[in-house]
Amino acid sequence: MSSIRVIIAGPRGRMGTEAVKMVMETPEFDLVAALDRKHGGETLSDIGFSGSDAPIYTDVRDCFTDHPADVLIDLTTPEFGYVHTKTALEHGIRPVVGTTGFTDEQLEELKELAESKELGCIIAPNFAIGAVLMMKFSQLAAKYFQDVEIIELHHDKKLDAPSGTAVKTAQMINEVRQPKKQGHPDEKETIQGARGANMNGMHIHSVRLPGLIAHQQVLFGADGETLTLRHDSYNRASFMSGVKVCVETVMKTKTLVYGLENILD
Amino acid sequence: MSSIRVIIAGPRGRMGTEAVKMVMETPEFDLVAALDRKHGGETLSDIGFSGSDAPIYTDVRDCFTDHPADVLIDLTTPEFGYVHTKTALEHGIRPVVGTTGFTDEQLEELKELAESKELGCIIAPNFAIGAVLMMKFSQLAAKYFQDVEIIELHHDKKLDAPSGTAVKTAQMINEVRQPKKQGHPDEKETIQGARGANMNGMHIHSVRLPGLIAHQQVLFGADGETLTLRHDSYNRASFMSGVKVCVETVMKTKTLVYGLENILD
Amino acid sequence: MSSIRVIIAGPRGRMGTEAVKMVMETPEFDLVAALDRKHGGETLSDIGFSGSDAPIYTDVRDCFTDHPADVLIDLTTPEFGYVHTKTALEHGIRPVVGTTGFTDEQLEELKELAESKELGCIIAPNFAIGAVLMMKFSQLAAKYFQDVEIIELHHDKKLDAPSGTAVKTAQMINEVRQPKKQGHPDEKETIQGARGANMNGMHIHSVRLPGLIAHQQVLFGADGETLTLRHDSYNRASFMSGVKVCVETVMKTKTLVYGLENILD
Amino acid sequence: MSSIRVIIAGPRGRMGTEAVKMVMETPEFDLVAALDRKHGGETLSDIGFSGSDAPIYTDVRDCFTDHPADVLIDLTTPEFGYVHTKTALEHGIRPVVGTTGFTDEQLEELKELAESKELGCIIAPNFAIGAVLMMKFSQLAAKYFQDVEIIELHHDKKLDAPSGTAVKTAQMINEVRQPKKQGHPDEKETIQGARGANMNGMHIHSVRLPGLIAHQQVLFGADGETLTLRHDSYNRASFMSGVKVCVETVMKTKTLVYGLENILD
Repeated sequence: MSSIRVIIAGPRGRMGTEAVKMVMETPEFDLVAALDRKHGGETLSDIGFSGSDAPIYTDVRDCFTDHPADVLIDLTTPEFGYVHTKTALEHGIRPVVGTTGFTDEQLEELKELAESKELGCIIAPNFAIGAVLMMKFSQLAAKYFQDVEIIELHHDKKLDAPSGTAVKTAQMINEVRQPKKQGHPDEKETIQGARGANMNGMHIHSVRLPGLIAHQQVLFGADGETLTLRHDSYNRASFMSGVKVCVETVMKTKTLVYGLENILD
Repeated sequence: MSSIRVIIAGPRGRMGTEAVKMVMETPEFDLVAALDRKHGGETLSDIGFSGSDAPIYTDVRDCFTDHPADVLIDLTTPEFGYVHTKTALEHGIRPVVGTTGFTDEQLEELKELAESKELGCIIAPNFAIGAVLMMKFSQLAAKYFQDVEIIELHHDKKLDAPSGTAVKTAQMINEVRQPKKQGHPDEKETIQGARGANMNGMHIHSVRLPGLIAHQQVLFGADGETLTLRHDSYNRASFMSGVKVCVETVMKTKTLVYGLENILD
Repeated sequence: MSSIRVIIAGPRGRMGTEAVKMVMETPEFDLVAALDRKHGGETLSDIGFSGSDAPIYTDVRDCFTDHPADVLIDLTTPEFGYVHTKTALEHGIRPVVGTTGFTDEQLEELKELAESKELGCIIAPNFAIGAVLMMKFSQLAAKYFQDVEIIELHHDKKLDAPSGTAVKTAQMINEVRQPKKQGHPDEKETIQGARGANMNGMHIHSVRLPGLIAHQQVLFGADGETLTLRHDSYNRASFMSGVKVCVETVMKTKTLVYGLENILD
Repeated sequence: MSSIRVIIAGPRGRMGTEAVKMVMETPEFDLVAALDRKHGGETLSDIGFSGSDAPIYTDVRDCFTDHPADVLIDLTTPEFGYVHTKTALEHGIRPVVGTTGFTDEQLEELKELAESKELGCIIAPNFAIGAVLMMKFSQLAAKYFQDVEIIELHHDKKLDAPSGTAVKTAQMINEVRQPKKQGHPDEKETIQGARGANMNGMHIHSVRLPGLIAHQQVLFGADGETLTLRHDSYNRASFMSGVKVCVETVMKTKTLVYGLENILD
């Protein structure tokens, strides 16, 4: 099997840097070019990725014309990402995009374009396979366990509570769970807040401590048993296994898929 | 919707006792009779289940003839269970059977009978939904995480290590996991056994302590993240939610299903 | 060494029943009599403890006069317990009492009596060694870790949140911890209650689920590391190891000690 | 209170780099000089620590003569460390040394020197307060819980199993624990190694997975309860809180102390 030719947009960002490394280290992937609004005309080795002489472009059309790649990994901003994604599809290149910023209209338009071109296109807000599986399994378990509580634990530099992942998890559970106000009907908090945040009867607890990074556990309870799903994220490298799966999967699909959970079966 | 009429075989056993309670407490279920090789002619309230006047039979045909039930819950032995299951299907009653003891020939014969009668039939070695979901999710996760270790923790009266559930989990993972010898290629045990039991490159660790009941966690690791699935079983009541799901599901199927994991979707 | 002669007050209560079993099963202990307001004149085997012919008394003075024991284990009510404790000391018997109900005046009086008689006397609100060690270790750790959060997890029949043990733990930590408002100074709850109950800047989270029994974890965080202390209580038998340690310890002390944490060193 | 004047030996090492940062960030500490065998005559800002003009010396006597500091933090090698420690004490400077490499004779000699000078001196193999507390608490708990198992979890680049910390923990427990062969007397491994490494009847289990960093949990069990002590180490910054405590403590002691566990009370 010939290798998959990849272009990366945004190679200097935090995610982009990891993506360049991942593609370079994956034998079946071939890094053929990069898109960067600043370093046009240079190569990736010029900006710190020794070992890659992939050329950097600032103009997306030039890039795609010179390098008929198989996949575009886009880790830029929603604004640039939208243009890159559309242009990629027009050039027969399958986009893998990390963003939550596309509008419903944009998604719809891109979907039609992907289908008319019979090309795969994956848009993912979260590339951490472990986190996505945790959410997906939580949704599956909620069909059989009506009682669920979520504990998310993060470093103490985090501003908002609960975390976006905890809220997303609760929303996904909510789609299948039979509504129920949990805990004892007459339970009372002797200190306010003890029972956490209430979302549709489910409770979410946010722990903040120095030392912690990003962790979440989802606890399900029923007579005589509990089931706990836990994800620990230690660093950004965790996103790359998800990007890799997307690159492999986008080669085999012929439509737009939103969310990593919809390609993990 | 009219209620589901249930017959229970083996009401005095440990599982059977819990099943009688569960059926009595479930409004949609109606306990119409019981099969017990000793107390024919008495009622369930005579043998300690106050509040139920369901009659007890020793003869399976008499029981099914007198009480055209919807579902038979069989928690006896493989020998009796096989006869009960076959006879139930012949009388138009859907069996839910907790056993690992049927032979492949018996399963095949019962499957043909169920399909010819267009009746559901569920045979399950393990009714703990949480444990079954843990195994099922482990298998799903193993497609994306090649590295996995299992820690099972039980009370110190347990004789064998690793536990049957741990071995079953490893087997299910093995069906989908790409083979890999885990750990550092040159790792060495300075004390023998430190790295646990090796099953196809996966490692299983068995903890035994007084106080513990029955627990298992399956840990998956990849760059920068870990995913942990944990089941805690505290007592036998945990099996009843699984029996309940089976009773509901067996009403909607028209074939034999083996294993709770195949009806949880 | 000769065995320790024990009298048990309250043998039919939930704790008392376990205590009778524990004393009977401990070779170094000798169960010589019991105090019970109902079954005077009978023996313990008459009320269900087969194998023990220890006589039951209703009158405390008669009991102590007939049976010059070493230790009284009192698991009755504060009212009876106070009389039993005082009378025991007067008869040269060392009391081990499970209660939170004595007043400061009563404790002071009993302490003076114990010291004048040069007899040990242990009053303990909680006999679960594991729980007491968790609290004690939490207090020790709080000297080095200013940042701490408590998660307590209980069955969903529990009315109050947070649990008494969680509040007691926070109080013990508070005695040594340098005050600090934890979390990001500008953190905000997007759903009220997410950050739990606030006690002096520490946060307590109360999880309630069917299946759970009684569990608590205390998490400490600092740059690059976390320390977690967890106690799981599965049933009432867990209290008996504490009672046993108290019986052994009360033989060697010559004053009143309040709280198991003060005899565990 | 005037600030504590600190000299750091080995500022370019992995631990040393963190120590320079910690001292610079601690208001009560004053970084007055550094010892480095290469960069004599330069300042710390010259070798990358912007903001510190502390001078670097290669000669230990010159350094201590020019800068009458209160404390030396030595993070070099056993060979250099021994000379630095001895010379520091001779100059009235209290050493805090991170090493396992001193011989018993060297420790004895340094202890005599410290006591004759009435100066504190702390030698510590491990500066992670959380890890040291976990070990210390494990030893305390083992007096009351005879049954204990250790699970240590590390990244899959680790060569040896079990980890040094796990073995050290077991040794510390062994000093106080009553010997016992744990598990069922007739337990048998159906797959070799399942029950882990056996150290005096205690069992140690070594988990290795990508993603993991350095984690250990010590589980104690008794009738009806378990107590779990867990330490998670995420990065090297975790050692600095221990170094800080040592600097503060060494100012108040007048002898040599070996091991962080002996200054944490």
